[in-house]
Order: sequence, then structure tokens, then C-alpha cells
Amino acid sequence: MDERVQISILLDLYGELLTTKQKNIMNLYFDDDLSLAEISEINNTSRQAIYDIIKRCHKLLLNYDSKLNLLEKERISLELKKDIETKLDSLKKEITIDKRLEIIEDIKLNIRDI
Amino acid sequence: MDERVQISILLDLYGELLTTKQKNIMNLYFDDDLSLAEISEINNTSRQAIYDIIKRCHKLLLNYDSKLNLLEKERISLELKKDIETKLDSLKKEITIDKRLEIIEDIKLNIRDI
Repeated sequence: MDERVQISILLDLYGELLTTKQKNIMNLYFDDDLSLAEISEINNTSRQAIYDIIKRCHKLLLNYDSKLNLLEKERISLELKKDIETKLDSLKKEITIDKRLEIIEDIKLNIRDI
Repeated sequence: MDERVQISILLDLYGELLTTKQKNIMNLYFDDDLSLAEISEINNTSRQAIYDIIKRCHKLLLNYDSKLNLLEKERISLELKKDIETKLDSLKKEITIDKRLEIIEDIKLNIRDI
């Protein structure tokens, strides 16, 4: 996964654990795609200070994720959901009742793992 | 929800954000059901010190959950899963193809919300 995309997702997952100021700066940089210069102007501080905050917050987000693992859980959950949707589509076309029952039981097992 | 059950679930969700010592004490008290006296003996400290750690950690867990809201997300997800399982069971018995397709589409919408 592209690092910027990954940080953006980590921000969605753990952004609330940052301070309001940290979260704002991270959002401006990773979601709104502003430059360090632009963000330092908005915050009336140096480019270096903004850079340091971004580096520090990136570490904090990675640290939270190394403990709670929500990024990986979300990835697995999304894959399972896609898989279930494919099975539901195959269920639409399936005419044999035995096979339908089999697919349904299979989906039920997947649902528990989400 | 019973407070002890709630704290036990919060420990599952956010326990990794506590220190190892804090987590151990919380597990002994809420999961293994040991008394304050027993835990203080194991940790070679006072009953009061253990009590203070438990109170402080409970606050920490509630604070994490007020920010990340995982308890409520899990509750909603569990409800949705039960609901989907019920729909899958009704799908087994449904003989009309139109109604089956309708239930399948309905399940697909539910899946996205989990």
C-alpha cells in the first residue's frame, strides 16, 4: 500500500487519539494535500516545526496500530465482505437447492469471521 | 450492560494500550475474578495501590473508547451479523425466486454496514 494512503487510513482509524492541533496538521497534509510551507503559514510556525509534528504523529499512529491492529482487521474484514458478496451473487443464480443450502452455510461461517 | 462485563470487553479492545503491569492487574481482577487482596499479594504491594491502578485503568479504557468508539461499533456489528444470519435462514426456506433475490439484496446492503 502507498505510504500516503496508509497514513490517511491510519488517521481515520486513530486520528481521535491525537490532539486537535496534531490531527488538523495531519489532515491538511495527508487528506487535503497541502504543502509543508502552506501548513506552516496557516499555523504561523516554521516549516521544520510542521515537519517534526508530522513525523512524530506518523510514529504515534504506527505505534497505536502495532497495538490495536485495526488496519489489518479492516483489510481482512473488507476481503471477507467482498467474498460474501460474490457468494450472494452466485446464490442468485443457483437453481439446485442443495447447493444453495451449502452456499448459505458457507456465508454464515464467513459472517462470524468479519 | 453489567459494568464488569463492559470493562472486560474494553480490556479486550484496548488492553494493549495499557502497560504490561496494568494489563495483568486488570485481567486478574476482571477476567480471573481475583480479589484486591489476592492481587496485592501477587504484586507484593498494598490493596490500596491495586485499587488505584484499577480505577485509573478503568478511566483510561473509557477515555480510549470515548475517542475510538469500538465498543459501540462492535455492538452494532454483532446485531447486524445476527440479523444477517436470520435472513440467511429465511433464505433457506424461501421457495419464491423473487423473494429470494429481494432477501439477497437486503443482505448485501447489511454486509456493507458491518
